[in-house]
Amino acid sequence: MPKPPAKHDFPVAQIRRYLEPGPIVLVSSRWQDKTNIMTLGWQTVMEFTPSLVGLMISAGNHSFHMIRNSRDCVINLPTTALTDTVVGIGNTTGAEIDKFAKFNLTAEPAETVGAPLIAECHASFECRLHDDALVERYNFFIFEVVKAHVAPRPKHPETLHYTGDGVFMVSGKIISRRGRFRPEML
Amino acid sequence: MPKPPAKHDFPVAQIRRYLEPGPIVLVSSRWQDKTNIMTLGWQTVMEFTPSLVGLMISAGNHSFHMIRNSRDCVINLPTTALTDTVVGIGNTTGAEIDKFAKFNLTAEPAETVGAPLIAECHASFECRLHDDALVERYNFFIFEVVKAHVAPRPKHPETLHYTGDGVFMVSGKIISRRGRFRPEML
Repeated sequence: MPKPPAKHDFPVAQIRRYLEPGPIVLVSSRWQDKTNIMTLGWQTVMEFTPSLVGLMISAGNHSFHMIRNSRDCVINLPTTALTDTVVGIGNTTGAEIDKFAKFNLTAEPAETVGAPLIAECHASFECRLHDDALVERYNFFIFEVVKAHVAPRPKHPETLHYTGDGVFMVSGKIISRRGRFRPEML
Repeated sequence: MPKPPAKHDFPVAQIRRYLEPGPIVLVSSRWQDKTNIMTLGWQTVMEFTPSLVGLMISAGNHSFHMIRNSRDCVINLPTTALTDTVVGIGNTTGAEIDKFAKFNLTAEPAETVGAPLIAECHASFECRLHDDALVERYNFFIFEVVKAHVAPRPKHPETLHYTGDGVFMVSGKIISRRGRFRPEML
């Protein structure tokens, strides 16, 4: 298990930096003194201010009802140091095990929500439910990120991007085309 | 400009293979005999069957009204061979230029929708508007992918993943953890 990285406050309006590239995330929750964690790859940024993120949390997940009741969660960004942990979390259910204990992860109290942060992740985004209009029909939750904690190094963490079938793409090189952007597009 | 790759039919229930890793896509549209293309990074898979995808298409885009009126679009997957084209498309507006002409791209007729395919892309997914319940409030469109065209090679195309600020992450190595998955999770 990697040592938990020290994290700094990060502007919530800028979290697209971490979520827009499409990484697998670990969503942590708490309801009635039980915690849980799920893996999730179906997420999208929806707005800068307020900082909105849409998450598809299938009703078959133990986390679905916990998050629906608590109306908050934490979106945590794992790196490749946690690859086997990510797979393990995605292939077990919180109905049967305590995932923090089983996977030797550290639950840290969040500042603004009831769900815990996962200390071993590169970043953690505290989220409050913003709109549940599409939860019934699609299991689609719109959250507002109300607090962001990010490790300042490495600048570009090695993230996992799921393709299905047990196969992941790992984030690769970084290229800038900043000089070709109109200033208002940056 | 890369030579347009030959494409095969691909099962619409399996397009998560290309979209779930979070690539930048090019969304093509047609309305009243005008075509357009926009770059988009705010997308998520929402369901396998029917094959649903959620796209945030900001109302400030020329494409927004075209797609809202035509009720269809094509989601095209560019590779790094098209990096400067992707940036160019994202920094110009269809209100002023014909993007297919300006960027030397080939508009091919789709089979089931009015919007054109972009022949130079690795894959093209024909989409029909499935639910506009969140368009007014969030500019969030839910599309059903009704037909998919994919180039069989390379198996893992080099895709672009936007981080903001003019900087892209390029897809990197592929790792399998298939052996650690429960069969029903694959």
